[in-house]
Amino acid sequence: AGAPQARALPAAAAVELVHTYSLIHDDLPCMDDDSLRRGRPTVHVAYGEANAVLAGDALLALAFEVLADAEGGCGAEAVAWCTRALAIAAGSRQLVGGQADDLAFAAGGPPTLSRVEAVHRRKSAALIAASVTCGARLGGATGDSLAELGVFGEEVGVAFQIADDLLDADRNEACSLVSVMGVERARERAEALLASALGRVAKLGERAAGLRMLAELAVRRDQ
Amino acid sequence: AGAPQARALPAAAAVELVHTYSLIHDDLPCMDDDSLRRGRPTVHVAYGEANAVLAGDALLALAFEVLADAEGGCGAEAVAWCTRALAIAAGSRQLVGGQADDLAFAAGGPPTLSRVEAVHRRKSAALIAASVTCGARLGGATGDSLAELGVFGEEVGVAFQIADDLLDADRNEACSLVSVMGVERARERAEALLASALGRVAKLGERAAGLRMLAELAVRRDQ
Repeated sequence: AGAPQARALPAAAAVELVHTYSLIHDDLPCMDDDSLRRGRPTVHVAYGEANAVLAGDALLALAFEVLADAEGGCGAEAVAWCTRALAIAAGSRQLVGGQADDLAFAAGGPPTLSRVEAVHRRKSAALIAASVTCGARLGGATGDSLAELGVFGEEVGVAFQIADDLLDADRNEACSLVSVMGVERARERAEALLASALGRVAKLGERAAGLRMLAELAVRRDQ
Repeated sequence: AGAPQARALPAAAAVELVHTYSLIHDDLPCMDDDSLRRGRPTVHVAYGEANAVLAGDALLALAFEVLADAEGGCGAEAVAWCTRALAIAAGSRQLVGGQADDLAFAAGGPPTLSRVEAVHRRKSAALIAASVTCGARLGGATGDSLAELGVFGEEVGVAFQIADDLLDADRNEACSLVSVMGVERARERAEALLASALGRVAKLGERAAGLRMLAELAVRRDQ
């Protein structure tokens, strides 16, 4: 059924669909009320609020359809595994819960390392972890290596979010590690998470070259 | 793995989760702007708009998690089949597309039988059909009988929606079969669809007693 990279593509598409749905809903007037996304008008600005809610809903459903369609190439067990992992990452315990925490963050008292990282883990890192584990599962990985890749993805995800906070340091967001520990220590924390993550995939050798490159790009970026 | 009825329960739960998510989003101010649902305040009235959007999102994701968790009792192939069927029923081609059509209905010109039934099929009947086919698939049905049960569900779904229009005849909704053909002919159309649907499950005998009862209840109700 083709190379592991090709078999993993439905996982990439499904995660991208979940990510895009969450951006459309996060941008809504009742949430972050953003009018620009990637330099262009947000969906509710361009097409109205009702269509933005519906477009997000449709993309979330489509993510699971895309996964189900991978059955022919990857087998039903892998599809069921990824369906569960993606549903959990997208649901109330992770992505949706993290967004709810983020909206309520300022009202919950002063930011602390543990409060900020809890939001980062749920809102950003869980979906990045799901992208790694679902891709690996469709590509044929099982057992302990999947669990280790999940932690790799979570560490990279939290570090990615710290890098985001560092780039946005002048926006003074409430839920930001920079506002808790300053620029220097936040940068050190991101590098420590990246080093830990890279250690987890060291034994995969050349097979993890792509993962290593993406992890470094995600954390050491300047935009 | 237990009786077919018990094995089908995850499908019932998943469909109910999709249905409830769609009601929460349909009630939003930017959609139908309803403040009461089942005699109680709608979610956005009780908990705010952001939480209503997020609650709907979380329920949609949970529907797919519940299906995935049926793997142990029903097998991965049945889970993948239901995931695909439910994702299609909930997505842009059915439920979400039907709601978008409904919102734009009045602007699309005068109501006609085909315009109204197209919305009914997408917005109501598709999910009812998915509830029948997913339940049957988890219970062990395959092939032609699944296709026939899908048409049964769709006919019952359209008849259910006509019954709804008959009960709401005094609300004067734009997208209503009553406004197209009047009370008497709308009632005849619902009965004809019900008769056709019942004919499709006649050969299943006693095994379809529950389906027959639900179909009759859905169409011949007074609330």
